Amino acid sequence: MAQKNSQSRRKNDFEREHLSFIPLGGLGEIGKNMYVLEYEDEIIVIDSGLKFPDSELPGIDYIVPDISYLEANKEKILAIIITHGHEDHTGGLPYVLPRLNVPIYGTQLTLGLIKNKLQDDLPGFKPETVEIRAGDVIKIGSFTVRFIAVAHSIPDGVALSIDTPLGRVIHTGDFKLDSTPVDGRTTDFGALAEEGEKGVLLLCSDSTNAERSGFTQSERIISGTLDTLYRTYRNKRIIISSFASNVHRIQQVADVSARFNRKIAFLGRSMIRNAELARELGYLKIDSKMIIQIEESWKYSDNQLVIITTGSQGEPFSGLVTMSRGENKSIELGEHDVVFLLASVIPGNEKLVNNTINRLFAQGCEVVYEKEKQIHVSGHASSEELKIMMNITKPQYFVPIHGEYKHMVRHSQLAQEVGIPQRNIFLMTNGDILTFSKNNPPKKQGHVQAGAVIVDGNAAGSIKSEVMKERREIAEDGVLVVAAAVDEKGNLLAPVAIETQGVFISDDTKQVFDELYASSERAIQELAGKHVNPDALRKTIKARVRDVLRKRNSSFAVVLPVISVKHNEANFFEKEFF
Amino acid sequence: MAQKNSQSRRKNDFEREHLSFIPLGGLGEIGKNMYVLEYEDEIIVIDSGLKFPDSELPGIDYIVPDISYLEANKEKILAIIITHGHEDHTGGLPYVLPRLNVPIYGTQLTLGLIKNKLQDDLPGFKPETVEIRAGDVIKIGSFTVRFIAVAHSIPDGVALSIDTPLGRVIHTGDFKLDSTPVDGRTTDFGALAEEGEKGVLLLCSDSTNAERSGFTQSERIISGTLDTLYRTYRNKRIIISSFASNVHRIQQVADVSARFNRKIAFLGRSMIRNAELARELGYLKIDSKMIIQIEESWKYSDNQLVIITTGSQGEPFSGLVTMSRGENKSIELGEHDVVFLLASVIPGNEKLVNNTINRLFAQGCEVVYEKEKQIHVSGHASSEELKIMMNITKPQYFVPIHGEYKHMVRHSQLAQEVGIPQRNIFLMTNGDILTFSKNNPPKKQGHVQAGAVIVDGNAAGSIKSEVMKERREIAEDGVLVVAAAVDEKGNLLAPVAIETQGVFISDDTKQVFDELYASSERAIQELAGKHVNPDALRKTIKARVRDVLRKRNSSFAVVLPVISVKHNEANFFEKEFF
Repeated sequence: MAQKNSQSRRKNDFEREHLSFIPLGGLGEIGKNMYVLEYEDEIIVIDSGLKFPDSELPGIDYIVPDISYLEANKEKILAIIITHGHEDHTGGLPYVLPRLNVPIYGTQLTLGLIKNKLQDDLPGFKPETVEIRAGDVIKIGSFTVRFIAVAHSIPDGVALSIDTPLGRVIHTGDFKLDSTPVDGRTTDFGALAEEGEKGVLLLCSDSTNAERSGFTQSERIISGTLDTLYRTYRNKRIIISSFASNVHRIQQVADVSARFNRKIAFLGRSMIRNAELARELGYLKIDSKMIIQIEESWKYSDNQLVIITTGSQGEPFSGLVTMSRGENKSIELGEHDVVFLLASVIPGNEKLVNNTINRLFAQGCEVVYEKEKQIHVSGHASSEELKIMMNITKPQYFVPIHGEYKHMVRHSQLAQEVGIPQRNIFLMTNGDILTFSKNNPPKKQGHVQAGAVIVDGNAAGSIKSEVMKERREIAEDGVLVVAAAVDEKGNLLAPVAIETQGVFISDDTKQVFDELYASSERAIQELAGKHVNPDALRKTIKARVRDVLRKRNSSFAVVLPVISVKHNEANFFEKEFF
Repeated sequence: MAQKNSQSRRKNDFEREHLSFIPLGGLGEIGKNMYVLEYEDEIIVIDSGLKFPDSELPGIDYIVPDISYLEANKEKILAIIITHGHEDHTGGLPYVLPRLNVPIYGTQLTLGLIKNKLQDDLPGFKPETVEIRAGDVIKIGSFTVRFIAVAHSIPDGVALSIDTPLGRVIHTGDFKLDSTPVDGRTTDFGALAEEGEKGVLLLCSDSTNAERSGFTQSERIISGTLDTLYRTYRNKRIIISSFASNVHRIQQVADVSARFNRKIAFLGRSMIRNAELARELGYLKIDSKMIIQIEESWKYSDNQLVIITTGSQGEPFSGLVTMSRGENKSIELGEHDVVFLLASVIPGNEKLVNNTINRLFAQGCEVVYEKEKQIHVSGHASSEELKIMMNITKPQYFVPIHGEYKHMVRHSQLAQEVGIPQRNIFLMTNGDILTFSKNNPPKKQGHVQAGAVIVDGNAAGSIKSEVMKERREIAEDGVLVVAAAVDEKGNLLAPVAIETQGVFISDDTKQVFDELYASSERAIQELAGKHVNPDALRKTIKARVRDVLRKRNSSFAVVLPVISVKHNEANFFEKEFF
């Protein structure tokens, strides 16, 4: 035994050099991307995204990764590297930065967008930033990071090739292999191939479109679509809704508008701000003479004008949605208008977008939104591109990232198709630890705290919190409050009061309420005695009232008894106040 | 003036013969179809559907049309004709029938499904039914109704050609022009053409797929898809999820299963019941020897078995969903299983279906769900079919029905393409009245009460009711209850009690609560005087507490003050109880 122990210690000593890959967000979901690379006592964090809540989380503003692990290892963190400027990669920063004040690495546009964001959410907070460019190779502790250009639906995105003492890790970021990108900045095959030749230990690659066969179309096709549409609707005023961050698409709209002699007016705060930033930094090239203020748009006839606006996801306060409701103060829609929805619907937003389209039709305008009209292309690589990425980088091990479980499964099937053995592919979940060491194959073992933190106003809480459960319950069936004030012995001091919020009462309302009053007061009378026991009181009232509701009203409303006890006639105010 | 009056009276007399078409549900929405045809003092109702609620209506069971107009004209109603057995055409009957007890006309399968439904929802209720068959011509009052076979995703559907003293109205029901339907029962072109030759005043046609170009594929292609899939997964146990009412699809699964020597087990209450009914009535032909009970499925090896189950829409308690959660008591899934999702996702269910697919992958099984694999075809006619319907029936006037506003707009564009002049096309909304008379063109004028009635437990209410508004508010931000018992002068009888449900309190919980107690008790003290005014008390407490919540907690929780007033020391119990 002694020998075995010492052996295993020796082995551990020998193997103590570890490299770990730990996703904290982005696996099993689209959103809140955050990946950790840890070598000995050094950590770099890749991306810090948010996710938007669905109807399961009513009232929640947004969701960020649980960063307990990073908070506990604060002193080890050297950098947060942001691959590109989309919210699912940057939106967690207002939550993360005050908790871990470390420098942010990113390209010019990415940092510009982040700074705009922080100005809103953390006014006065000045993060340390390091601006990098695609092609740069930067040493961060024991890590040597090469930034590699990738094409995506926002300019200036990068993949990372990270050289570590235990091998090279490639993180693709979000990418597609668009051969004719609008800005001419293709995904840098050369750099990726070079890294592949040097040898890649681990590839972590974008799984978003792993379900889609073939190739994702080039962003450039939108230009052809626009040309046809502008021709078809030559006499109408054109309203275009797209993602505010898709600078390439805005560029194409601007170019086609110039050819058709139409002026452009931007509408919607994020659209105006992003366009401004992108023009300032040179990512968006529009002649100033082409741009007019929305307020002066009345000066132009229908065929001289294009309005570019937000709201492609049906966001309630966006330009397009307020227009569709007839509530926009600058623009009123009518039969002389045509709306192009140049965007796909992000899963979960189907209803909002659909309602917007229906309302637009009801305003009398024509709407172009059908997929078959080639009004949108994805920013993510499809199956064939994903296989090319694997063949170029030739990784020894593979982890599909950035996707729901189904996308990761499909992506791992693609990896097997190109010859990566199944045992070298790791399907991970957030918090899993994949550890590499010098002389043994990597192992997925152990788990750090990971999950979702929900942000609601200025409070942040666990996604599994009791609060959310409570909120869902009252959302389903409403709440019925029974308020009772009792003395120390549990005798009622005043009649019980009952209020409801969101509860349907069947037609015999009066009878139902009579029974509710009677049953709760009876419960209180029964429990009155030597000393009041508020918990028992609450429990009994709850049970009795629930019975009445279910029997008389078929209602499963949450019953909330609120008991106040008068303990001491003389000085209860003092007790409460001072 | 006198002359003019008498003239217009004469004109009115002459024109008093009126035929009206009034949609009560189904326009501007997919769901709760209900159409009224009224000639003089005779009414027939076509369909009585329900709609399922979205996240805007938390906790609601289902939605039915507001039938106030029919209730007010009860004695005029001669019949409810049901075109086919889908819930969006039959599901309102449990609500409608007790309110308007009129005979239901329908085909054999349609009536069978309705009877099953009523057994559950209105046990003991025996409706008067009239079974009809496609081809029948039946006189109902002044209406002569010809029932015309149509192909759809449920067998035994019919269109209606209704001859009235003022002209012929064709209502298509839900249809497609499948030339090779599984049961061989094609849409009856001959009958439709015959009616077209006789002359059609008004066509009301299914708009569901008006957005889709071309033709909807034949249901029969599923058979080829299944053949390929059975071959690919020859060694796996096969689980198939589809709509329980799609008898044609179940037939194809049964046929392919027979060819591959697999037994069939049905799982899920509605699947078992529908299959039973369809076999009993002869719509589904499966050799009894092929069917086994789910409980004996363990006796069969993977490649000998197919399980057909519900849950294609991610319904929480369905067979597929309980399996995906590892909570089904009969079937445990694993790597030896493959699931085919032979259904499209009904808009609004995307999230539920997606989560189910991800959970199925996490159970280790393979899942086939991608559209490109031809696992589903629609039951509704696409553009080219819709144009054919118009060309066959040659209507003078046209109303697109059964669709969201965008579908109706597209359908009216198709009508113009085939030569129906725009002035003869009416885009209607629920409650609109389209009136035909002998010598004047029809007019859309007037409006009857229409809308949605929401059913929650045994209570039914208006969709715009305060209750739903309340429910949405507490769903967003939770509720905070302030309970206070005061005497007749408004003096507190016991300390204020505060409870929350679904409210996030920021980190300084104690301080926030201290302020909440203090501000509400202070409000009560300020208002105490000669006579208590509970409304003023509620209002002031609400305002003060809201201020604290917003400032201290950034919370917009609903504040619900519950005040009980002790009016008369001696006998308040008596007042309440007797």
